[in-house]
Amino acid sequence: MLSRRNPQLNSHGELIHLLSIEGLPRAVVTHILDTAGTFLSVNDREVKKVPLLRGKSVFNLFFENSTRTRTTFEIAAKRLSADVINLDIARSSAAKGESLLDTIANLSAMHADMFVVRHGESGAPYLIAQHCAPHVHVVNAGDGRHAHPTQGLLDMYTIRHYKQDFTKLTVAIVGDIVHSRVARSDIHALTTLGVPEIRAVGPKTLVPGDLREMGVRVCHDMTEGIRGADVIIMLRLQHERMSGAMLPSAGEFFKNYGLTPEKLALAAPDAIVMHPGPINRGVEIHSAVADGTQSVILPQVTFGIAVRMAVMSIIAGNNA
Amino acid sequence: MLSRRNPQLNSHGELIHLLSIEGLPRAVVTHILDTAGTFLSVNDREVKKVPLLRGKSVFNLFFENSTRTRTTFEIAAKRLSADVINLDIARSSAAKGESLLDTIANLSAMHADMFVVRHGESGAPYLIAQHCAPHVHVVNAGDGRHAHPTQGLLDMYTIRHYKQDFTKLTVAIVGDIVHSRVARSDIHALTTLGVPEIRAVGPKTLVPGDLREMGVRVCHDMTEGIRGADVIIMLRLQHERMSGAMLPSAGEFFKNYGLTPEKLALAAPDAIVMHPGPINRGVEIHSAVADGTQSVILPQVTFGIAVRMAVMSIIAGNNA
Amino acid sequence: MLSRRNPQLNSHGELIHLLSIEGLPRAVVTHILDTAGTFLSVNDREVKKVPLLRGKSVFNLFFENSTRTRTTFEIAAKRLSADVINLDIARSSAAKGESLLDTIANLSAMHADMFVVRHGESGAPYLIAQHCAPHVHVVNAGDGRHAHPTQGLLDMYTIRHYKQDFTKLTVAIVGDIVHSRVARSDIHALTTLGVPEIRAVGPKTLVPGDLREMGVRVCHDMTEGIRGADVIIMLRLQHERMSGAMLPSAGEFFKNYGLTPEKLALAAPDAIVMHPGPINRGVEIHSAVADGTQSVILPQVTFGIAVRMAVMSIIAGNNA
Repeated sequence: MLSRRNPQLNSHGELIHLLSIEGLPRAVVTHILDTAGTFLSVNDREVKKVPLLRGKSVFNLFFENSTRTRTTFEIAAKRLSADVINLDIARSSAAKGESLLDTIANLSAMHADMFVVRHGESGAPYLIAQHCAPHVHVVNAGDGRHAHPTQGLLDMYTIRHYKQDFTKLTVAIVGDIVHSRVARSDIHALTTLGVPEIRAVGPKTLVPGDLREMGVRVCHDMTEGIRGADVIIMLRLQHERMSGAMLPSAGEFFKNYGLTPEKLALAAPDAIVMHPGPINRGVEIHSAVADGTQSVILPQVTFGIAVRMAVMSIIAGNNA
Repeated sequence: MLSRRNPQLNSHGELIHLLSIEGLPRAVVTHILDTAGTFLSVNDREVKKVPLLRGKSVFNLFFENSTRTRTTFEIAAKRLSADVINLDIARSSAAKGESLLDTIANLSAMHADMFVVRHGESGAPYLIAQHCAPHVHVVNAGDGRHAHPTQGLLDMYTIRHYKQDFTKLTVAIVGDIVHSRVARSDIHALTTLGVPEIRAVGPKTLVPGDLREMGVRVCHDMTEGIRGADVIIMLRLQHERMSGAMLPSAGEFFKNYGLTPEKLALAAPDAIVMHPGPINRGVEIHSAVADGTQSVILPQVTFGIAVRMAVMSIIAGNNA
Repeated sequence: MLSRRNPQLNSHGELIHLLSIEGLPRAVVTHILDTAGTFLSVNDREVKKVPLLRGKSVFNLFFENSTRTRTTFEIAAKRLSADVINLDIARSSAAKGESLLDTIANLSAMHADMFVVRHGESGAPYLIAQHCAPHVHVVNAGDGRHAHPTQGLLDMYTIRHYKQDFTKLTVAIVGDIVHSRVARSDIHALTTLGVPEIRAVGPKTLVPGDLREMGVRVCHDMTEGIRGADVIIMLRLQHERMSGAMLPSAGEFFKNYGLTPEKLALAAPDAIVMHPGPINRGVEIHSAVADGTQSVILPQVTFGIAVRMAVMSIIAGNNA
């Protein structure tokens, strides 16, 4: 059954949940980006309040803590006029031994309209989408190492904003690819949008060879990886990785894979530098680059609100 | 003085606080249930946003943590268009040694319109209602072992929805009666609404004989307690009770008092099964019953939002 | 450069941030107090909801926990129809090693319109105001021992409400002056508004002699300090001070500097008693005084909401 293969789409091919960029038709991705554009106004790109989700209840279910991501969804939902309820999952019924699906069934019975879910286990948002009531929509805000689709979409919005045409680009993703749901979502999105060369750059412990199966060029040498790139996506190095066996030290990592002005000079002259944030200055990126003219890290944040507004308003408008 | 005897009603007999179901006239209870019905729309029972509490400030004062109950009140208040302020009491002035009444006086001075209070000590909401400014309304969201009136009312709404006439019913309440404010509120409400047979079912340690003084039939045998019942209200077994001297073990409890399909077959054929949640599958209720056709546990949650909207809108409309 | 000397004002002398009362022109202070008056309605001083900040996003950034102060800002912002986002800083990116300015840059990129900042380090709100985008406004909600300007302004509102004319008053500030940002803000405000006699009253360890440089009369004797005063501002004694070397004991402090009915009798017959709250009954103030007819402690709280609404609406209306 088609709906089983792609639980994000209804029988008309319309988006009802956002769980992963993998398997989304290019037209759906482009529709999200176009819609996001309408939420950025002409003057100073100020986002206005719109009544699209008036009277709807959006629940932020963050089983894994992330104040930053939760805040962006909260802002997006409030700008769509939704009522937002932040559940402190660690202190809630989940902690009293209630199962995930019982928690979801209860919240659905409260007439929740949308769940924004972050969970440490890959696939949790799929499980929720499969079991919730037909009127409920699910947005994956990051599940395990699997996917972070709104980050992938805001990255695509950013690239399109600065580069317009995806079909001529070389995009380098640098750092801890293996643990990164952002990298995985970006790779699926870039592939869907027709980017001809995607490079995964980093040490062997963090960039495994089997990424080649996804159509990605694997580069363990930063010079090779970054040369001529139009877009450089730096990933955050998790502190917990640094002290483990996977990496010698933060200083060593920065020497080899940190983005300095010198390394950036190897890329295309008009290359843009992206990062999902929060940045580790002096670990994966030099301050002169983070704050430099080629950095589009803060515009990514601005576009991220508009992209989340777009996703929420689109799925809320479609029926299962 | 009448008003001293019933601090929930003004001199016209109108509801100004909801502190306990005990002592509420049947007409007031029925008015709440009728009002709740108006908040459940015909189509798919979707609750709409209404402006009844627009510009009002509702403070959630949860001295005892309960994310689930707090969330239901937050949703109900937001659907009435109120501004909701969740106070993190554990981190607030109360922790700085300020007295309960000073905290209440300060919040009243901020022009709070309503306090939703959960407190570990029985009677705390009464104390607050006695001392707050005349324009402030208090809702008891559970105090000690004393009362949980909105749970009692949503249980009555549920029973009326499925059974219509209270005056012919046999209702069995099963489990840890002695520690349960839900049981106490249910018993008062069922009595007020004219239910002829109320049974309290459970072991002697959890169902004391003096319940008979409330007009309740005490049954220590589950078969006797459940036979022919039209409504079965299962109570949550608190984990902290299980390891104490009051109970041998969760397994033993389930064997004797857990609701299985076999035991449910002893009740009336159209009996409904209720539970205040969150359920402990395999402790007080078998999954086949919790998820079965006679279970109305999730409708209880839905009705609970409407009942809380009804309570809040009614008391906000009456003057002290 | 003038703007460097007074970063709170734009080139037209209009308020764009509220960082400190020090250096604010008297006309600006008076304008805030006048505006606050318009938010207190005639009937029972009920504050109505107004759409002045509709569609604006106000971020509460409390690096130091204060539920009470955060709540007053949250209420004020919601009554101005703003969207309020409470950031749990302790659990946010700041805890992941992100710098204060990177956090601020990110939140600005989300189109924050206003930051309400409490921080343990003096000057943090200045740093934020200097580095945030031009469309963003900053309100200092208390920084280190430096300033707490909205408390100072609400104290001025209270004094003006009861005493009308500042230019004939004797104001005594009693207690732990040296650690108090409230005292510092009050002294600047009282000076700006032309109060001829400001007294700082307390033991030598808590009231240093160099306060005289601010034009304040230092009194280590309570009888001298309070005699003939028109306004008495009692400060909260922090518990952590009591056990240190600075004070012998809470009982000793109360004996010497606690405000009792006997000591209050030394002040002007119509003197008012103020306190920023939460009060320590029996430590800095006797219950008979706190609850007495001369106490205006609860009206301070009510005025505080209106003053914060005034500050927020004024700065949001002015451009950098």
